[in-house]
Amino acid sequence: MQQKAYLMVPGPTPVPERVQAAMHRPMINHRGPSYEAMFRDISARLKTLFHTDHDVLTYPCAGTGAMEAAIVNLFSPGEKVLVVTIGVFGDRFAEIAAAHGLQVEVMTVKRGAAACPSALAARLAEDEGGEIKGVVVTHNETSTGVTNDVRALAKAKGKHPALFIVDAVSALGAIPMRMDEWGIDAVVTGSQKALMIPPGLAFLAMNGRAWAAYEQSAMPKYYWDAKKIKKSLDKGQNPYTPPVSLLFGLQESLAMIEEEGEEAIVARHVLLGQAVRAGVQALGLQLFAEPEAASSVVTAVCVPDGVDGKALQKKMRDAFGVTMAGGQKELEGKIFRIGHLGHVAPADVLVTLAMLEMALTEMAVKVQLGAGVAAAQQVFLAARREEK
Amino acid sequence: MQQKAYLMVPGPTPVPERVQAAMHRPMINHRGPSYEAMFRDISARLKTLFHTDHDVLTYPCAGTGAMEAAIVNLFSPGEKVLVVTIGVFGDRFAEIAAAHGLQVEVMTVKRGAAACPSALAARLAEDEGGEIKGVVVTHNETSTGVTNDVRALAKAKGKHPALFIVDAVSALGAIPMRMDEWGIDAVVTGSQKALMIPPGLAFLAMNGRAWAAYEQSAMPKYYWDAKKIKKSLDKGQNPYTPPVSLLFGLQESLAMIEEEGEEAIVARHVLLGQAVRAGVQALGLQLFAEPEAASSVVTAVCVPDGVDGKALQKKMRDAFGVTMAGGQKELEGKIFRIGHLGHVAPADVLVTLAMLEMALTEMAVKVQLGAGVAAAQQVFLAARREEK
Repeated sequence: MQQKAYLMVPGPTPVPERVQAAMHRPMINHRGPSYEAMFRDISARLKTLFHTDHDVLTYPCAGTGAMEAAIVNLFSPGEKVLVVTIGVFGDRFAEIAAAHGLQVEVMTVKRGAAACPSALAARLAEDEGGEIKGVVVTHNETSTGVTNDVRALAKAKGKHPALFIVDAVSALGAIPMRMDEWGIDAVVTGSQKALMIPPGLAFLAMNGRAWAAYEQSAMPKYYWDAKKIKKSLDKGQNPYTPPVSLLFGLQESLAMIEEEGEEAIVARHVLLGQAVRAGVQALGLQLFAEPEAASSVVTAVCVPDGVDGKALQKKMRDAFGVTMAGGQKELEGKIFRIGHLGHVAPADVLVTLAMLEMALTEMAVKVQLGAGVAAAQQVFLAARREEK
Repeated sequence: MQQKAYLMVPGPTPVPERVQAAMHRPMINHRGPSYEAMFRDISARLKTLFHTDHDVLTYPCAGTGAMEAAIVNLFSPGEKVLVVTIGVFGDRFAEIAAAHGLQVEVMTVKRGAAACPSALAARLAEDEGGEIKGVVVTHNETSTGVTNDVRALAKAKGKHPALFIVDAVSALGAIPMRMDEWGIDAVVTGSQKALMIPPGLAFLAMNGRAWAAYEQSAMPKYYWDAKKIKKSLDKGQNPYTPPVSLLFGLQESLAMIEEEGEEAIVARHVLLGQAVRAGVQALGLQLFAEPEAASSVVTAVCVPDGVDGKALQKKMRDAFGVTMAGGQKELEGKIFRIGHLGHVAPADVLVTLAMLEMALTEMAVKVQLGAGVAAAQQVFLAARREEK
């Protein structure tokens, strides 16, 4: 039985046809006027998306590259940072900081829960000497399907002089972010999530406090050097050859984002998350994340007792066409994750639930066919009633 | 609520990404060697698909153009043809024949039913003088969702000297066809159906008897002149500039057809048809076609009492993203039609049923959410059990 492919992982996310078509455009000279006009347009639109008046720097790299760029541009070896980690990607930021010789204090939160703003405030209140130079938080932790309340965390950080750095790789564009208003000093994101283009670009926005820290930073750097990127950006350029096709795609996806509108996009993700959670719960499955912390862009589901999580994922992909993500590290085999991020609509959720019902049935898990779909349908119908 | 677009009409059918990508290739000279190699390859593969040793002629036109080509190449004004019509497209073939001065006898079958082979045999048995020069049948009638048993009709025609002509526009490639084995003299099809490419190409295959009739035909013709097409084809060419991009796409779609395999494609369509019929019946809707005549590529469904058929179609398209077809001519507003032809998979059927459940609910038709989906799931799960 030939199935169509549904990419339901929390990134890379499905690339819209309009974006695919834009990426097919013939190559242009990245030192010529048409590239410059495009790059200036993209950079201006990114500022709108980040809700910042500061420059958004574009790096040709994975999201992890921009995380490393944040570390090497803002700190010096031996300085202390506090990394609040709620999952694999928080852990990674801590690893990057340690690799560059920072003193890393990790505040680990139970997997499935969000970081507690008052715990952060309490820890910083203890730091009377201002030893902590940076606080790093993850906006949306894809490994557990949990979203942090970044606004509340930023408020909890308050007037402590540490830089407040947010990994918004899987959040920005889908989950509200107000960089300047919330007082965030540096924000990192990637191309293959809410921006709906293939992997290959990452972004770092730095405010005035961050640029001041840059001037003090004694960290060796070249490719990640923010000032080089910024100087080129002022001329509508990149210091090193950019992946032009991805930028063609980004310009188109930013146009799509503006057409749909930020508020509508955020609401769509909230709705898709509600529908997925209602669907899997109607099938008797347990959600991994605590309800109040559940992400609107990825849902982690506990593998039912007696089911081989890897086999379920494999069956979903190979027999039913739906690619889901598994658990990472200690959660491997214990959870599976359904991404509903970027170019995703009700149909994708309905197909995923219908295929999940069939896969579970074949694995001898008793589920009522159509029950998960019906629960999601109720969510969509209720939303349509509210729209009117 | 932004929805994704599902094109569930019986043509144009969804174009696979591979085919889209192939059509993006840069233009080539249609009189050069790479075009010639491609066109020879395509023409050879089309013969395999038609199950014929005779040439398949490619016309840049709609399917209706190839229907007209069959008439003007095979007959002379004043000759008599018997057109067996089970719907709008049978009627159209009769109109084309009449427009070119043929005497047209129409054998009309009740809408929703297939043509009866014994009725054809009986009518031809009466034609002792051999007045009837051609018998025209529709393989699959998209207007009613009915498939004729062409093999049985060809057998019923038997040794009567009339040419046996089949309109296989919405059938060929998805419903079995054995042109030479079944003794069909001419077969017409189009590009935008099972061939999975956009509209713009149509095909006419003629056997030896048809070519002999061509030599006798006194019909004026130029663009449709089969011999001009054939002479060019022998040189790997077309007489007039062909739509090169569509041929790029066709070469790719023929490769996809070969990869999946004819038997698997036919079985897939049969399964999709079963699932759609089970789904709509589980929602309490009536099928329009007689069960034994139901098409595997399009399902006609009676609009429920008290529901505005046009409003249902509009809601499905505008609110839920699924484009279905309405009824044509006297069936307008009385039926709607779900195409499941070409690049279609279980996910498309599941989405269509889920969206139909929601649309009917909003139109105050009592349906159990998930019930149509569940009936289709049962069909798919049963097929998977049989596969093993």
